[in-house]
Amino acid sequence: MIKLLEKIGINSQKAFKKKINIKIKNKVLKKYANLILKNKLKIINQNKKDIKYAKKNGLRENLIKRLFLNDKKINEIVKSIKNIIALKDPVDITLNKWNRPNGLKIKRVTVPLGIIGVIYESRPNVTSDVSSLCFKSGNCVILRGGSEAYFSNKILVKLFRKALEINKIDKNFVQFIENRERKTVDLLLSKMKKYIDIIIPRGGKSLVKKVQKLSNIPVLGHLEGICHTYIDKNADLNSAIKIVYNAKLRNTSICGATETILIHAQYSKKFVNLILKKLESSNCIIYADNKINKIFKGKSLKAKEKSWSTEYLSEKVSVKSVKNVFDAVNHINKYGTMHTDSIITKNKNTAKYFLKNVKSSIAMHNTSTQFADGGEFGFGGEVGISTNKLPPRGPVGLNELVTYKYEVFGKGQIRK
Amino acid sequence: MIKLLEKIGINSQKAFKKKINIKIKNKVLKKYANLILKNKLKIINQNKKDIKYAKKNGLRENLIKRLFLNDKKINEIVKSIKNIIALKDPVDITLNKWNRPNGLKIKRVTVPLGIIGVIYESRPNVTSDVSSLCFKSGNCVILRGGSEAYFSNKILVKLFRKALEINKIDKNFVQFIENRERKTVDLLLSKMKKYIDIIIPRGGKSLVKKVQKLSNIPVLGHLEGICHTYIDKNADLNSAIKIVYNAKLRNTSICGATETILIHAQYSKKFVNLILKKLESSNCIIYADNKINKIFKGKSLKAKEKSWSTEYLSEKVSVKSVKNVFDAVNHINKYGTMHTDSIITKNKNTAKYFLKNVKSSIAMHNTSTQFADGGEFGFGGEVGISTNKLPPRGPVGLNELVTYKYEVFGKGQIRK
Repeated sequence: MIKLLEKIGINSQKAFKKKINIKIKNKVLKKYANLILKNKLKIINQNKKDIKYAKKNGLRENLIKRLFLNDKKINEIVKSIKNIIALKDPVDITLNKWNRPNGLKIKRVTVPLGIIGVIYESRPNVTSDVSSLCFKSGNCVILRGGSEAYFSNKILVKLFRKALEINKIDKNFVQFIENRERKTVDLLLSKMKKYIDIIIPRGGKSLVKKVQKLSNIPVLGHLEGICHTYIDKNADLNSAIKIVYNAKLRNTSICGATETILIHAQYSKKFVNLILKKLESSNCIIYADNKINKIFKGKSLKAKEKSWSTEYLSEKVSVKSVKNVFDAVNHINKYGTMHTDSIITKNKNTAKYFLKNVKSSIAMHNTSTQFADGGEFGFGGEVGISTNKLPPRGPVGLNELVTYKYEVFGKGQIRK
Repeated sequence: MIKLLEKIGINSQKAFKKKINIKIKNKVLKKYANLILKNKLKIINQNKKDIKYAKKNGLRENLIKRLFLNDKKINEIVKSIKNIIALKDPVDITLNKWNRPNGLKIKRVTVPLGIIGVIYESRPNVTSDVSSLCFKSGNCVILRGGSEAYFSNKILVKLFRKALEINKIDKNFVQFIENRERKTVDLLLSKMKKYIDIIIPRGGKSLVKKVQKLSNIPVLGHLEGICHTYIDKNADLNSAIKIVYNAKLRNTSICGATETILIHAQYSKKFVNLILKKLESSNCIIYADNKINKIFKGKSLKAKEKSWSTEYLSEKVSVKSVKNVFDAVNHINKYGTMHTDSIITKNKNTAKYFLKNVKSSIAMHNTSTQFADGGEFGFGGEVGISTNKLPPRGPVGLNELVTYKYEVFGKGQIRK
């Protein structure tokens, strides 16, 4: 197995040596989009095989839903690729330049990250999205998709490689690990440092946890999104109701969904019932601290210490009364996961304090944490959201899949 | 021991909560510089203790040289601090901002990295340099200096903390691990992930190797600097002689010193003797491949495969004949350490190919690899040079000790 992985690593290294200009990169992506449209039926047939196995193996309904491809979903895949084609080339951008007193000219210029390993589950669209983003940013990608999506992923990779071949580009810019053994992932994470520069896990908590634990290669991503919405005493009540409802319930399964609502104590009597009733009416289960429980006239359960660090990803929410914005920020910096946190207030100074002091990668004012997403940021897609301290953090889109180098231009200068 | 470290971690976390404005930051640094000048004699006396122990323990002469402080060296320390005072505040800079069609305003803003652990050897000036850079960039620093510099480091830290106290700032922005047990470093690297965001090792290869191996915290730095200077067929001969001499011999002990010279085969007859004779005349030992050995009329030893990946850090150099710039780039990407590599040529296209294709963090044209240094880049100091793929890479100065967050401003927008 390790021999096979090393071969894949060497293939990537060889492919990476070739710099491809933006015209050709876009030509490949256009061809890819066309090939997907042309082969729609074939893709759906391969996907049917996956679905059949998944049902036979008793895969959970929501995972089968993610796995499923139809005409509409394939059109969305193609639309994503077209979005990526429309983006500017992120490589070879001069970020900064300056001259030194000795005449040296220094430039900081973007370069691809290198070879990216992506480990993911269920969703076949990750195959096309991530391959397209990595390729356009000049990187080579090694894909290891979930075995439940094996046939769907395989055909989507095959078509990308065909698009590369037709354009006479090394098809190993995109490689797919076909082997379905579980230990493959372990080997990929622990033995491939020589070949792979960055690992990106996309999937549930257990996958990310495993990757973070086993990888000796830097990992881009996040384990949990324990996102908060803080309702300040100066919040606009109608806005607060609307935002909180959206932040929690629009889509409970995404990492940017709010998991804890913090409410300013002074005004909680005014706010709590209006805000929580709305959630309750949509069958959201409420875990509240004592103060909130006393005020709330609906049904709520008692929050435990553990509630503050629970990522529900479902119709459940923790609610806490806080003394003020300082208390809110302290709570977020203690229990949060540096993902996304929002304040609702009309007071600009309070908002400023919140934005500057929460440790979150994404700090928001008067809006829904569900906007934590590369597409919503205008990045034309993302490979995920990173909560690392070092860059890139937040949504990782095309422009975040590059790093930089320094170029120094002299005329024979030597150092004294 | 771990209890003590955890206490230090908690102290840092508490201190980090306080945002300090640029005026106060500079005031603290000014006070620090003054305190160092005022206490010059005391510092020298403490340093004498270190020197005495070092001699007694048979520390190598070059390490004692690094350890030694006198009036002049202390003035240099103060000068460094003043350079840092003169730099702009790197925190809260808007790197980028844009509006979304739904009216959301998004900003990418610099923020401190957090809590930085620095593990270093011998040089007491690292204590003042690194503390000043970390403090000015809004970070907390936990220092673990080499036991050989214990007394010198201790007084330099004490004075920084005094400068903080005088300005009513939490003195735990700068902490020093006094414990001199070896296992302290192991614990710091393996058990403090909860508290420390980044580890920066400064010292010899064995220290860096250890840190990279044991740390579960991201490490900023580099293991080796196997830097190359490639002399192209279109090089200006006089310039090449001057640059190569400087790149190799100006200071052989720094990581930016050239360790391998690559010479275009077609012109090596013309170049080799002139270039290598100059090195030989300064007692530089030459390890050359067969082709070079045949041409060179001076004394040279036979290079072995291992020579290409040896960081001499002394008056020794490997010399190889390469077919062309492609061959040179391949050699560098195979044996180099992504540190610094330079091409000498008058041909702009050849230079461009080299600069764009070497994987180095710093790629140079017609100048000396010895310029790979934060000070020389105009960064007003550095905590070291990183050869990581992800940012920050290259010299890590004040502006590289920050990361960023996103600030999103809404007016009640919710996601559809």
